Amino acid sequence: MDPALRALGEFGLIDRIRQRARAHSDGTLRGIGDDAAVLATGDAPLLATLDMLLEGVHFQLAWGRPRDLGWKTVAVNVSDIAAMGGTPRFALLGLGVPAEGASLATLEALLAGIEDAAAAFGLTLVGGDTCGSRSGVVLSLALLGQAPAAGAVLRSGARPGDRVYVTGALGGSAAGLLLLERGLAPDGPWPAALPRPEWLTAEDEAAARAAVAAHLRPTPRVAAGQALAGAASAMIDVSDGVSSDAGHLARESDVALELEAARIPVHAGARVAARLLGREALDLALRGGEDYELLFTAGADPGPRLAGAAPEAPVTRIGQILPGPAAARLLRPDGATEALQAGFDHFRG
Amino acid sequence: MDPALRALGEFGLIDRIRQRARAHSDGTLRGIGDDAAVLATGDAPLLATLDMLLEGVHFQLAWGRPRDLGWKTVAVNVSDIAAMGGTPRFALLGLGVPAEGASLATLEALLAGIEDAAAAFGLTLVGGDTCGSRSGVVLSLALLGQAPAAGAVLRSGARPGDRVYVTGALGGSAAGLLLLERGLAPDGPWPAALPRPEWLTAEDEAAARAAVAAHLRPTPRVAAGQALAGAASAMIDVSDGVSSDAGHLARESDVALELEAARIPVHAGARVAARLLGREALDLALRGGEDYELLFTAGADPGPRLAGAAPEAPVTRIGQILPGPAAARLLRPDGATEALQAGFDHFRG
Repeated sequence: MDPALRALGEFGLIDRIRQRARAHSDGTLRGIGDDAAVLATGDAPLLATLDMLLEGVHFQLAWGRPRDLGWKTVAVNVSDIAAMGGTPRFALLGLGVPAEGASLATLEALLAGIEDAAAAFGLTLVGGDTCGSRSGVVLSLALLGQAPAAGAVLRSGARPGDRVYVTGALGGSAAGLLLLERGLAPDGPWPAALPRPEWLTAEDEAAARAAVAAHLRPTPRVAAGQALAGAASAMIDVSDGVSSDAGHLARESDVALELEAARIPVHAGARVAARLLGREALDLALRGGEDYELLFTAGADPGPRLAGAAPEAPVTRIGQILPGPAAARLLRPDGATEALQAGFDHFRG
Repeated sequence: MDPALRALGEFGLIDRIRQRARAHSDGTLRGIGDDAAVLATGDAPLLATLDMLLEGVHFQLAWGRPRDLGWKTVAVNVSDIAAMGGTPRFALLGLGVPAEGASLATLEALLAGIEDAAAAFGLTLVGGDTCGSRSGVVLSLALLGQAPAAGAVLRSGARPGDRVYVTGALGGSAAGLLLLERGLAPDGPWPAALPRPEWLTAEDEAAARAAVAAHLRPTPRVAAGQALAGAASAMIDVSDGVSSDAGHLARESDVALELEAARIPVHAGARVAARLLGREALDLALRGGEDYELLFTAGADPGPRLAGAAPEAPVTRIGQILPGPAAARLLRPDGATEALQAGFDHFRG
C-alpha cells in the first residue's frame, strides 16, 4: 500500500472526505461523521446510510453461508439506523457478481437472506444495481430510515457527568470469526482443525457456536435504539470495536470518555475462544468489532425504559464521561488508565 | 461462470430479485424496475438510486483519469434521477481501497472529481463507507433526489400513438471507450497504438476525442429531464445501450416500441471510431451504452418545451409506440424490421 495512504489510515481518509464535502443542497441536518446522515426531505427527517461487504475482506463464500451473508448485508445497515434511534424503511442493493465462484444457487440463497432480514426488520428492497465483478462478490447496501419523533440520536451529544452504557455483550463476533476460520460452524461436527481440549464443557461449546452465529448473522438493536431516542445523549453502534467506537463518540462530542475494564460485558463465546486460541478475552471485546450492539451515553439510568421497550437487550454501565479534551481511555482494575487503542483499520489490517 | 447464471443473464437475475422483494414497509410508490425508486417519505416523494463502478469492469486506473472517475461515479447516478425528471440532493459513497495500485494522490483526485460533480449538480455528499478491497477500487454511490412537482416520470407510461425521442447523440461513449483502450485521450498526442489514417481531418480528430471525453466524463441531462416532467409519458436514461433501454421501456409500459434506424442521431465520434476500427457506427449507437442521454416518449412534440428549459439538449424523434405485445424493434431504411438486440449484459460480457 502507498505509505502515505497507510500513514493516513482509513479514518484519516474519512476525515479528508469530510473536509472536502461541501453543502451544495439544503437539508443536511447531519452529514458525514455519524452512523447515518440526517436529512430534511419532507415533514419528517430521513436517515440514510450505506455499507459495503466485499468477498475476501468481510466474508468468504467458502464459509458456505450465503443466506447468512444476505442477512448480514442488511443487518449491518439496520444497525446504523438503530444507532440513531430510527426505523429502517427502504433499501437499495448493489450486487457485483464474479465470473467464477458464485453460482446461481449461491446468489439465490444470498437474496433469500436479504429478504429474510427485510421481513424481520420491516424494510423494503426498492432498487439497486447489478454488475459483473473481477474481484469476488461485491455487496453494497444503502438504507433509508425514519428518524424518531424525539429526534435522531447523534454521536455528538455526550456531556461530562453522563454515564456510558452498552447493550448486550462484546467480543462475540470477533471470537466467532476466529473460530469460523478454524472451521467451527453454528452447528455440525466439531472441526478437526481445532483440537478440542478436555476442559471444554457443553456450555462452552454452545457459547463458542453462539459466537460464530453472532458473527455470521448479527442482530441489530432496533427496539433498544428506538427506546433510547429522547433518553440517550449520544449513541453509536459497535462496528469497528468498542474502543474505536468510544473514540468516535468522544471526538464527535468533544469530551473525555472513560471505559472501566472490569465492567465490560464480555461475550461467553469470547471467553471460550480466548482460552482455546491463546487470546485475551477483554482484547476481543474491546477491539474485535462487528458486535452491532449500541454504545450510548445518558444522564439518567436507561434501565427501566429499556426493560419495558426492549427486554431482549440487557444493558450494562461501562464507564463515564469526564471533563477534559476529546479522548477515550480505559480504566484498569488496578486504577491505571491507558489510551484506548483503535480497533480495526481497513488500511492497516 | 455458472451456466445457470449465464443463461439467466443480468436482467434475468434482476427479475428474480424483483420477484423476491416484498413490501415490508409502507410508502414504496415505485420499487425495482425503474431508473430510481419513488418513495413517500414526507410531504414530497423522494427518488433513490444506487450504482456501482468497479475497477477492471467499468474503468481502469491505468487510464490515469481519477478525477474524471469521481465525476462519473456521481454523474451516472444523477442520470437516473434526471430520467425521473427529478433534482439530485444527497449522496452516500462506498469506497473500497485495494492494498496496491491506488495511491493517496489517486484517491484525492477521485474525491476531488466527486466534489466537482456534487457542485455541478447541486448535491451534497452526506455519508458512506470506506473499507479495504482485495480486488481493485470499488465505488458505490447511492443518490437521493426530489421528485418533480408534476410527478416522477416512470418507464411505464408509454401508450400507442406516442412518439419516441432521445436527447443528444448516441454511441459516443462506446466509441470513446474503444479509442481509450487504444490510448487516445481527450487531449495530448495521437497514440502510437492507433495508426492515423490519411482521411482523418482535424474535425474527425476532435470528434474522436470528444467521444473519449463523453465516456470519461458524461454529462447527465438534468435540466432536460426536469423540463420533461409532466410532458413525457415515459422516460429512461441510456445506460445499457438504447436498444436495451428501449426494451426496458417497452416492457415496463407493455407496448410495442419501434425505432427507425435512419433517425438515430449517431455521435460524430462514433462515426470516426467506426471507420478507424472497422465497426458499424449504428451498432455503437444502438448497443454501446453509457451515453446517459434521455430516451422518452410523448404524445406532443416536446421540442418547444425543451428549447426553452434545456437549450443545450438537442432532441430527435427516433420512433413511435405501436399497439401490440411488449417488444422493441428496429425499422431499417428498406422497410425491414428486426427485434432490437439487447445491449451489454454484465454476465455475458
